[in-house]
Amino acid sequence: MVLDGSLRVVVLAGGVGGAKLAYGVAMQVTPQRLAIIGNVGDDFEHYGLHISPDLDTVMYTLAGIANPTTGWGIEGDTRQMLDMLTRYGEEPWFGIGDRDLATHLLRTAWLSAGHSLTEVMARLSAALGVGCRLLPATDGLLRTMVDTRELGTLPFQEYFVRHRWQPIVERIWFRRDGACEVTRQVCQAVEQADLLIIAPSNPLLSIGPILEVDGMRDLMAKRRGPCIVVSPFVGGRAVKGPADKLMRELALDFSPRGLARFYAGLIDGLVIDESDAGAPQPEETPVLITQTLMVSAADKVRLAGEVLAWGGELAE
Amino acid sequence: MVLDGSLRVVVLAGGVGGAKLAYGVAMQVTPQRLAIIGNVGDDFEHYGLHISPDLDTVMYTLAGIANPTTGWGIEGDTRQMLDMLTRYGEEPWFGIGDRDLATHLLRTAWLSAGHSLTEVMARLSAALGVGCRLLPATDGLLRTMVDTRELGTLPFQEYFVRHRWQPIVERIWFRRDGACEVTRQVCQAVEQADLLIIAPSNPLLSIGPILEVDGMRDLMAKRRGPCIVVSPFVGGRAVKGPADKLMRELALDFSPRGLARFYAGLIDGLVIDESDAGAPQPEETPVLITQTLMVSAADKVRLAGEVLAWGGELAE
Repeated sequence: MVLDGSLRVVVLAGGVGGAKLAYGVAMQVTPQRLAIIGNVGDDFEHYGLHISPDLDTVMYTLAGIANPTTGWGIEGDTRQMLDMLTRYGEEPWFGIGDRDLATHLLRTAWLSAGHSLTEVMARLSAALGVGCRLLPATDGLLRTMVDTRELGTLPFQEYFVRHRWQPIVERIWFRRDGACEVTRQVCQAVEQADLLIIAPSNPLLSIGPILEVDGMRDLMAKRRGPCIVVSPFVGGRAVKGPADKLMRELALDFSPRGLARFYAGLIDGLVIDESDAGAPQPEETPVLITQTLMVSAADKVRLAGEVLAWGGELAE
Repeated sequence: MVLDGSLRVVVLAGGVGGAKLAYGVAMQVTPQRLAIIGNVGDDFEHYGLHISPDLDTVMYTLAGIANPTTGWGIEGDTRQMLDMLTRYGEEPWFGIGDRDLATHLLRTAWLSAGHSLTEVMARLSAALGVGCRLLPATDGLLRTMVDTRELGTLPFQEYFVRHRWQPIVERIWFRRDGACEVTRQVCQAVEQADLLIIAPSNPLLSIGPILEVDGMRDLMAKRRGPCIVVSPFVGGRAVKGPADKLMRELALDFSPRGLARFYAGLIDGLVIDESDAGAPQPEETPVLITQTLMVSAADKVRLAGEVLAWGGELAE
């Protein structure tokens, strides 16, 4: 298969790391042929607002307005509202910028007017000039829950942001409220995809909740094109966030071999960083060794280009 | 009665003009002995937020953080959220500053957690260092509605802000959802008051909705101290807003005589500006002629001082 604009690509992405690769892919695939499937497991309600941190990170990144320092939030955003909350005696622990607030206000208002999260994200991302589809894995309520040794069960954001992923994790599970099925739009995108890419996101906390959506694993299993996962590890450590700490706490192997096992049956290729070439490798899954650290825009485009090219080869 | 800190005072206040006089009174009355009863008729929901413009204007003014240019909103506040809303294709017509948003978010969250508006305002205003009680006239839902010639029936803020009070008004009425009774706190404050002051607020749009609350007129009629109204007119015109335009459209006399008739049975004294000394005067209600325009803090304190002193005399 030749890598050209006609390749239909789906990227499964979590937050910051996933958004970076999604950006690189979006620079090389015709927008109409690209869909990003995003994680809603870390969505939560905060001061009455429905916040979708991972979806927003991808949206802001693709729109070119993400804060380049943090990877999340909007570049140049301010904290007037948060400062005022503090003046009211609150102790806000989740960073909501003033511009960012507009996103949450509109999402919350539109959801309560009866629109689906899929519709909301389509409208928001189109307004910001994002050409590809940004699809929540489900319009149902699926929330990542973390059982910790020190603090008991925590909703994801309390674990991740409030307690800075420091508590020791004993179990990750998913709270559901009603049906949590893959959406029609996700089905269509995956069924038509020539290539599926699992972005370098946390396997347990970002990709896990996507795979947990009813129908998602079956849909992935019936894929017509290859599925490539890009390892989130560099030199045996997560580039950002708790992926390695967490997998260690849960006694999971997070070497390339372990990662291939984690995604067993779902992937046809694994991309790892050259710094992990000496770690245990998968026996059956093909591996592409390259530089996976994405700092500059050029890094993102180069890595995405290599993944797309390899996807073309694997499809042949 | 001697004017000292022991006078128990209640001020009925609308927005900007009312807040100015309330500020002047608050500078001279022991906080524990002062209650401001505020208008909720102009409350509304906007992007899912419960906004109480008049209560907030009074609160920000008493807290010393009001925007001195507009009289409403918070000094030095920014418009990042509003600018982002515009980027999303919205046309926000109500000015919500970024700091101001914290107030609306907390109020909305606390109301939906089951707290009353009275409790919410107590908590917010205490956090901002406001010592006196700032009491919504009711915790029920009472909304000012305006029938206009050009645009039909409009909720108050659509008339007032969105259409800048330009449509010709044919009728003002109040939408109620369930009981709209005076609160226990309002009852207690009015019953104990040595002096009631009706601030120079719009009689129809600011004071009217307070008097419309079930039980309010009866409560005022049983007052034990005198009630003084300060005219919102200077030279036969409203200092700010549509009071004169509106009263003309509704064929109401807004001379000092007309104002005394409007408040017939409720007031024992009328304070007017010296520029209105030549207009028709009330036949029975005592009139105090002074300078009522409040520009500086000193103006507010002086006018409030004169009203308090006259209240003391009338009570004797």
